[in-house]
Amino acid sequence: MAESTRIVLASRPEGAPTPANFRIETAALPDPGEGEVLLRTRYLSLDPYMRGRMSAAESYASPVEIGDVMVGGTVAEVLESRAPSLAKGDVVQAYSGWQTHQVAPASGLRKLDPDKAPISTALGVLGMPGFTAYSGLLKIGQPKAGDTLVVAAASGPVGSAVGQIARIKGARAVGIAGGPAKCAYVREELGFDAAIDHRAPDFVDQLRAAVPDGIDIYFENVGGVVADAVYPLLNTNARVPVCGLIANYNATGTPEGPDRLPAFYGRILTKSLTVRGFIQTEFVREMYKDFLREMSAWIAEDRIRYREDIVDGLEHAPEAFIGMLEGRNFGKLVVRVG
Amino acid sequence: MAESTRIVLASRPEGAPTPANFRIETAALPDPGEGEVLLRTRYLSLDPYMRGRMSAAESYASPVEIGDVMVGGTVAEVLESRAPSLAKGDVVQAYSGWQTHQVAPASGLRKLDPDKAPISTALGVLGMPGFTAYSGLLKIGQPKAGDTLVVAAASGPVGSAVGQIARIKGARAVGIAGGPAKCAYVREELGFDAAIDHRAPDFVDQLRAAVPDGIDIYFENVGGVVADAVYPLLNTNARVPVCGLIANYNATGTPEGPDRLPAFYGRILTKSLTVRGFIQTEFVREMYKDFLREMSAWIAEDRIRYREDIVDGLEHAPEAFIGMLEGRNFGKLVVRVG
Repeated sequence: MAESTRIVLASRPEGAPTPANFRIETAALPDPGEGEVLLRTRYLSLDPYMRGRMSAAESYASPVEIGDVMVGGTVAEVLESRAPSLAKGDVVQAYSGWQTHQVAPASGLRKLDPDKAPISTALGVLGMPGFTAYSGLLKIGQPKAGDTLVVAAASGPVGSAVGQIARIKGARAVGIAGGPAKCAYVREELGFDAAIDHRAPDFVDQLRAAVPDGIDIYFENVGGVVADAVYPLLNTNARVPVCGLIANYNATGTPEGPDRLPAFYGRILTKSLTVRGFIQTEFVREMYKDFLREMSAWIAEDRIRYREDIVDGLEHAPEAFIGMLEGRNFGKLVVRVG
Repeated sequence: MAESTRIVLASRPEGAPTPANFRIETAALPDPGEGEVLLRTRYLSLDPYMRGRMSAAESYASPVEIGDVMVGGTVAEVLESRAPSLAKGDVVQAYSGWQTHQVAPASGLRKLDPDKAPISTALGVLGMPGFTAYSGLLKIGQPKAGDTLVVAAASGPVGSAVGQIARIKGARAVGIAGGPAKCAYVREELGFDAAIDHRAPDFVDQLRAAVPDGIDIYFENVGGVVADAVYPLLNTNARVPVCGLIANYNATGTPEGPDRLPAFYGRILTKSLTVRGFIQTEFVREMYKDFLREMSAWIAEDRIRYREDIVDGLEHAPEAFIGMLEGRNFGKLVVRVG
């Protein structure tokens, strides 16, 4: 009988998560039943949305319960199969969460071809973050030649893909990132037209100077001071796909006034803005095949580049995750498990 | 040489407009040049967007300058024509503003057929307000059978059309209006599924009770306390076409806290909302012909009803306009001129 070492939610964070919100433990696994497989996790994805799952507040997905395994996308190897579609040794994209082993129905797993791309990319540029960028940008952002796009966390897995796809579509891409090293990477390696450090004291002025024709698409994944700087620069009929608001995730209570909501709402009217929250899952059926085909081709042509930030050992997942919420990762954060 | 009696902007309002913000005067008109016509205004439309034009603040259209004629849609009669497309006696949809006469290029005028529909409807159900309802609801709201729609100012020209078109598309329509008489009209004459008085002390509870399955479309034309009550009831993937925010138009300064913006923005994400400001003009090319055809047919079939609130005499336009911003009109507010 197999065992799984796993990280569970020990308590709900108030404000920023701390290591005390997590607990590591070992649990026995049942034998796989008919149609199921036993998986060993190779890579675990760490993503900002997980912060939302740690809270009990209403959101688009149910919270993780206290004592339950933290959720998360994984790349796993099949150790044992009782499903005709998968064999021992197969590598699959799974959703095992923060643990070393899992018994799961084969029906929810997507088999990966390790010869086609490094398997960890199924958690990044060829996985959920890449698809978030692809679907949100193309369906909601609708980039066209000559548009100006702004995206924050531009060295991260979503932002980096957003800017590069926008450029493929003929738009001008302005990235925002934290610190000179990330900005240099965004400009020089990813080929963005400009990169701006949101920590710079004159960040707002730098952003304005970088978008002389205003902003047509703001791909929103951070909120906070970046959004405050961007909104006044949006052009009439600008589009704002909203996939995340990491700046708000650790907020507690209601911020002090003045109440900026009426002015924000008024701007949506006077500028004919489209502000559209989305979760990539809503576009999977319609777009996922095109995504895999196009992104794979763009990577092969060196038109899309990506960067991974790999942490070794499941036991380091909590501190890596906490660091990511503070912007300490550089590239797609992935834990190499066991 | 013709003269025009006209109402000009005398000063910019601070808060609610007052009669002192307007001035009536008479000006000589030039003779019509080649391709131009001399118009006599028959009906002047009064609409909430005009409040925006009285302010110097940035918006989707330039402000009216001090001393300039107030802008506005009109139905006018051709008194003299130097354009082959129009003859003396023709009735046209124009944009003469708050005045009795105008010399205008014939190219911007749409000839009306007085036998087809009362000519004043070109300012209401078959004009800009009706098209605002039609285009915003169909393009952005995307009603489908079983959806629940909420719209405020439901006895007004936009709201009444929105609810009735939504019902034609199989949605459930809940209207919000001010006072029992308007609510009775919305329910009994317009056939909405429910009508709620926003002045009722238990308005929020009544609204919640009226939408047991939540709200899929909120057609936004008012903002303020109605929007505050509606947003918590929006379903995942709800659509919010924003065509007006009359509750905010007279606001001065920035309201006190708490700052409700982060929670509002967060809801757009967690509920995958589409919040989309629009001006009907952006859809004219694509949809205006269909609008005229469909709305005319629906009116003929008694599936769309409308109500006009007609005020006699251009000199009463300012007080009628001020009253409209306070919700004192009942139906599409139109001034019968001269």
